[in-house]
Amino acid sequence: MSKVWKLHTVEEAWRELARYLPPASLPAEEAGLDAALGRVTADPVLSPEPLPPFPRSLVDGYAVHAADTHGATEGAPTYVVIAGEVRMGEAPRQALAPGHAMWIPTGGMLPEGADAAVMVEYTRPWDAAEIEVRCSVAAGENVIGRGDDVAPGAELVPVGRALRPADVGALAALGILSVKVRRRPVAAIISTGNEVVAADATPVGGQIRDLNAWSISAAVRQAGGEPLRLGIVSDVLEPLAAALRDAVARADLVCVSGGSSVGPEDLVPQAIASLGEPGILTRGLNIRPGKPTIIAVAQGKPIFGLPGHPVSGLMVFGLIVESTIRRMLGLPPARPCVVKAVLDRDLGSSAGRSDYVRVRLEEREGRLRAVPVLGKSAMISTLVSADGILHIPPQVEVLRAGEEVEVELMTEA
Amino acid sequence: MSKVWKLHTVEEAWRELARYLPPASLPAEEAGLDAALGRVTADPVLSPEPLPPFPRSLVDGYAVHAADTHGATEGAPTYVVIAGEVRMGEAPRQALAPGHAMWIPTGGMLPEGADAAVMVEYTRPWDAAEIEVRCSVAAGENVIGRGDDVAPGAELVPVGRALRPADVGALAALGILSVKVRRRPVAAIISTGNEVVAADATPVGGQIRDLNAWSISAAVRQAGGEPLRLGIVSDVLEPLAAALRDAVARADLVCVSGGSSVGPEDLVPQAIASLGEPGILTRGLNIRPGKPTIIAVAQGKPIFGLPGHPVSGLMVFGLIVESTIRRMLGLPPARPCVVKAVLDRDLGSSAGRSDYVRVRLEEREGRLRAVPVLGKSAMISTLVSADGILHIPPQVEVLRAGEEVEVELMTEA
Repeated sequence: MSKVWKLHTVEEAWRELARYLPPASLPAEEAGLDAALGRVTADPVLSPEPLPPFPRSLVDGYAVHAADTHGATEGAPTYVVIAGEVRMGEAPRQALAPGHAMWIPTGGMLPEGADAAVMVEYTRPWDAAEIEVRCSVAAGENVIGRGDDVAPGAELVPVGRALRPADVGALAALGILSVKVRRRPVAAIISTGNEVVAADATPVGGQIRDLNAWSISAAVRQAGGEPLRLGIVSDVLEPLAAALRDAVARADLVCVSGGSSVGPEDLVPQAIASLGEPGILTRGLNIRPGKPTIIAVAQGKPIFGLPGHPVSGLMVFGLIVESTIRRMLGLPPARPCVVKAVLDRDLGSSAGRSDYVRVRLEEREGRLRAVPVLGKSAMISTLVSADGILHIPPQVEVLRAGEEVEVELMTEA
Repeated sequence: MSKVWKLHTVEEAWRELARYLPPASLPAEEAGLDAALGRVTADPVLSPEPLPPFPRSLVDGYAVHAADTHGATEGAPTYVVIAGEVRMGEAPRQALAPGHAMWIPTGGMLPEGADAAVMVEYTRPWDAAEIEVRCSVAAGENVIGRGDDVAPGAELVPVGRALRPADVGALAALGILSVKVRRRPVAAIISTGNEVVAADATPVGGQIRDLNAWSISAAVRQAGGEPLRLGIVSDVLEPLAAALRDAVARADLVCVSGGSSVGPEDLVPQAIASLGEPGILTRGLNIRPGKPTIIAVAQGKPIFGLPGHPVSGLMVFGLIVESTIRRMLGLPPARPCVVKAVLDRDLGSSAGRSDYVRVRLEEREGRLRAVPVLGKSAMISTLVSADGILHIPPQVEVLRAGEEVEVELMTEA
């Protein structure tokens, strides 16, 4: 029953775990465009055709031969003959002869021969047959050529891209209505503890409801995975080991919460160790909250023993499990979304340990202030009332009130 | 056919629009916990019971009367009589008499009479009946009292909260499996243009596929809304006005893309103006890209004439439409997620105009560099290859290579 583990930094633990996690390991599946937002491309998407499929005007005005406009100014316009108009959505009926101009709306197809467009503001009607052109345009000016946006065969969207609205639009522009994406990793979620009852049960005696299954489910979704809640297992070795075997068989990764602290029987580590090689990689992180964490791999699948305290569990999820899900999808660890704020009170920390402090953000006198939320990591309310997390790295022992700090925002998406 | 509009800043346009948008205007509906992530609470959620429902130990060790430990040190321990153990998930069988200690695991229910817990590390077995206590604990130490996390009747989750994993967990902890949230605003999406064909069609002649309907749909989802694609309407006033009337009747807001520039017939503004009072509030924003934007309100619903160029349309969406959706949900404008980077090349801008420059982020020599993506706003590829947006405010005319700039990240979620 030794309490002394060699604590690891999150970076060490991640490096060790990542050795066992080939990136982008999940199989591909098709997603329709309406379901594609946020999904991760499994292949580069190449453009089957040029975009735009024809040269287009970017302005309302006249399609011209650029050479015809050379030297034109407001004081010394040149004159070109009106040769009809381009209608939206139709190919021009004839090519444009030198010395001629064709009315063209924004987005209209450039007639053959034309190589530029003059904005209507720089033209003036002269007579029924001719217009004045009062500025010079270069070849290619105010137009976009066939394939200038995307050439045929060019990479439209890269592999490993979590699709954003612009990417979805680009796919639609090329008529690609379904895209190969990585299947969402399925994360099995098991809660342990003889005291834990389902969230829809009425606890009696010393019982409490299973909070972690729900907070971790939501965190899995947020990270791009699919939660698979496998319920509550009591603190008995064989049922727990059986539940874990089932979880490993059915899911891509496993989160088991509670029991990773040093209880009298160390059940969760024993059960995890029974799953096979390489087994437990890391036991104990030098962070607060979140120290009693287990990271293991068995049958090629990562298994996380998350602390039972709800705040600690979510913290460790954000530090390690999220990156695991992203790696399986082929994404790098998330770039944290941070804001700068002025710390509201002194904060101490132990040297050699990373502290993650919940803070509320308050706008006061035009400055954003980071107000630490006090309370134990067993108290979910401390996280509910927080807007973000302030990291105190191992080498820092105190942060002073008034210092500017970076706060990582907690988001819903 | 005047090209001269009084251009407005985004802030002016937003202030004007917001006057017509009561916050949190959407009706409430119930969402189950599995669908609650990211949804916005329509009421404060009050706790029906205390959390935890009983006083719990936060450590593995012994439940004690704190007074019995006073003065105890490693050199001068005190002795208490072992009075059995607390079992997880069960109420202790008896109260704890002074001078006694009961073994208690983390999360165990404190016996009546006990007011603190001593960590097992600070105890030692003495004989079969007694243990040594080698440190002093204060009343309340290493325990959490009944209702200390959330008192009964206290606000568990505030109104207007976009639910995060911790919030979902807090609801589960109190047995609240369904929560009142604002209905997602339905955003009708109409594309205009005789040249536009559906994304699943094969364009011929001067036709192009409808990209905007898909990029805007995805942006609506990202902002928390529900897209309702109403298809493509040709550039004819009455069908367009009819489509807009239908959209206003069916949706909470309307996005019509294309045609807001000054074409020969100004159809979109005319059609929008036909919808009723107060009508068009803003026509033209002092931004690039995104200038030819129309913002209107009719029948109490916001209507956006978005530029037809895909990059411009998404930019205006992010500057105004997203905040509109969030306001209807009861959320403030999104806090932008920014990173600092070193600008890679000089960037010029016109005084009095806000420029939004697409940039790629590249890690070079340990520093993040912001590399502007060049290309016209008609080119969706410029947005696909960008990682973020650099805002050059109206009073800035040039940003120099080497300057530190803030880049707002484009995200998928």
